[in-house]
Amino acid sequence: MITESALIQSLRAIAAHPAARNLDDDCAVLEFGAETLIITHDAMAAGIHFLPGQDPADIAWKLVASNLSDLAAKGAEPLGVLLGYQLGGDDARFVAGLREVLDHYQVPLLGGDTIGATGAQVLGLTALGRATHRPVPSRGGGQAGDGLWLTGPLGAAMLGFEALQAGTGDSLAYRRPQALLAQGQALAPLVTAIMDVSDGLLLDASRLARASGVTLAITSAAVPIATPEDRRDEALRWGDDYQLLFTLPADTAPPCPAQRIGDVLEQGGEPLLLDGVAPLGKLGYEHG
Amino acid sequence: MITESALIQSLRAIAAHPAARNLDDDCAVLEFGAETLIITHDAMAAGIHFLPGQDPADIAWKLVASNLSDLAAKGAEPLGVLLGYQLGGDDARFVAGLREVLDHYQVPLLGGDTIGATGAQVLGLTALGRATHRPVPSRGGGQAGDGLWLTGPLGAAMLGFEALQAGTGDSLAYRRPQALLAQGQALAPLVTAIMDVSDGLLLDASRLARASGVTLAITSAAVPIATPEDRRDEALRWGDDYQLLFTLPADTAPPCPAQRIGDVLEQGGEPLLLDGVAPLGKLGYEHG
Repeated sequence: MITESALIQSLRAIAAHPAARNLDDDCAVLEFGAETLIITHDAMAAGIHFLPGQDPADIAWKLVASNLSDLAAKGAEPLGVLLGYQLGGDDARFVAGLREVLDHYQVPLLGGDTIGATGAQVLGLTALGRATHRPVPSRGGGQAGDGLWLTGPLGAAMLGFEALQAGTGDSLAYRRPQALLAQGQALAPLVTAIMDVSDGLLLDASRLARASGVTLAITSAAVPIATPEDRRDEALRWGDDYQLLFTLPADTAPPCPAQRIGDVLEQGGEPLLLDGVAPLGKLGYEHG
Repeated sequence: MITESALIQSLRAIAAHPAARNLDDDCAVLEFGAETLIITHDAMAAGIHFLPGQDPADIAWKLVASNLSDLAAKGAEPLGVLLGYQLGGDDARFVAGLREVLDHYQVPLLGGDTIGATGAQVLGLTALGRATHRPVPSRGGGQAGDGLWLTGPLGAAMLGFEALQAGTGDSLAYRRPQALLAQGQALAPLVTAIMDVSDGLLLDASRLARASGVTLAITSAAVPIATPEDRRDEALRWGDDYQLLFTLPADTAPPCPAQRIGDVLEQGGEPLLLDGVAPLGKLGYEHG
């Protein structure tokens, strides 16, 4: 078996379209008619992307919200979603959660497919959106001299996950993440680079740095966190908060609440510096 | 656990968009910019939609071709596909087959997602297309007095499946089905209703009949088959041949090779008549 990252490289290699360079970590961007279409597809599996025994309504919410978050990072307005649904435990609860999240975001279910299969439940969602600003922002435009910004605190999903596992409390942050669509649309005309933080700030920031060909210098103390101070380092490596990370020219103020967490530097030896040094250890949730 | 068809009904009920009436059996149609977008998503699972042990290159081919066949039935020109890939056996063979089928149809891989998970491998594919004719044809426009037509023979995939299982021969018909894109584009401006035959002629014809509010009268002997005569009835109930089934006004000649297999009648007590009587038994491959 080849590794997941090797597979992704193989798939990228056969992708005729430049959009597919982004396979597995970003949206596809397609000129169509007089508009620009933004498309993303994510798959989730029981035991990996959600807890076995978790409320299927929350799984439906997260499946939709995490894909809409990808659209948010492109400044896109959602047009609809298609669902690939493997029959599982409490399908009626899944449908109830799906209805809630689609109502919440006013996004239609356009179609999809349902299948019966054995084994861990696997779900897929395709989300389509319309670009509200062109050129569509990407991870790749950060410039030395820009500021590095984050829309809100990290770590709430981590605390929510722990509470859910321990049965000690209830937190919407992990179960019902929010896709920052309005913020993404406000940011799209101003940012030089943008992405959503789904796999951990340090990991996603290093991806943005590589895509932009820069070094990002993050000041740890400047990063807003939702956890006690002694868990700051963990919060910077945990995903699932779906905040937007972006770079702005030095003289540009963000159009939505956001914290400046660092600076964009010329490309150095490391893509990422945390308080001046390359962070050690696992930066976030790695695929494969 | 609710049944698959009950789930589909639940999902349809929450679908805000009329396109999602077609959930699980048809494409979504979305006006976008100055164009019309056609979108379909199909999921396939090991042991259900493909044989465990089957060449992954063939699985990749069928996954793509079956989705492109859905686009063909809308007269759409493919724009690209997104892949949801669960790591499985021989991933490199899958990628090789994916490259072959995308090259064959000149369709780009736009993006997607790869995941690791246990259990039967589940694959998803989203295909996007541009409508070449508007209004986009559907299953729902057949009129009493129309002729009922089929683009080519049925049963080749059945024979191929049997040969593959028995190890007695090799047939491309089951392993590498063809999506009739050129035929679909030629037919779109002329047909009153059209669909691809993926689940069996009798089953799919009964769906077209219901969608159109008509009765379809098929003459068994007029249906082209690729099997010996004594297997005609089976061939009419086997899927995977991906021929196009369509209705044409009586005075219209088909623009591509096709056989007239019956007539469109006013809606009677049965959606489908085979040689004058409602066919008994399983009409094809039923979901759920």
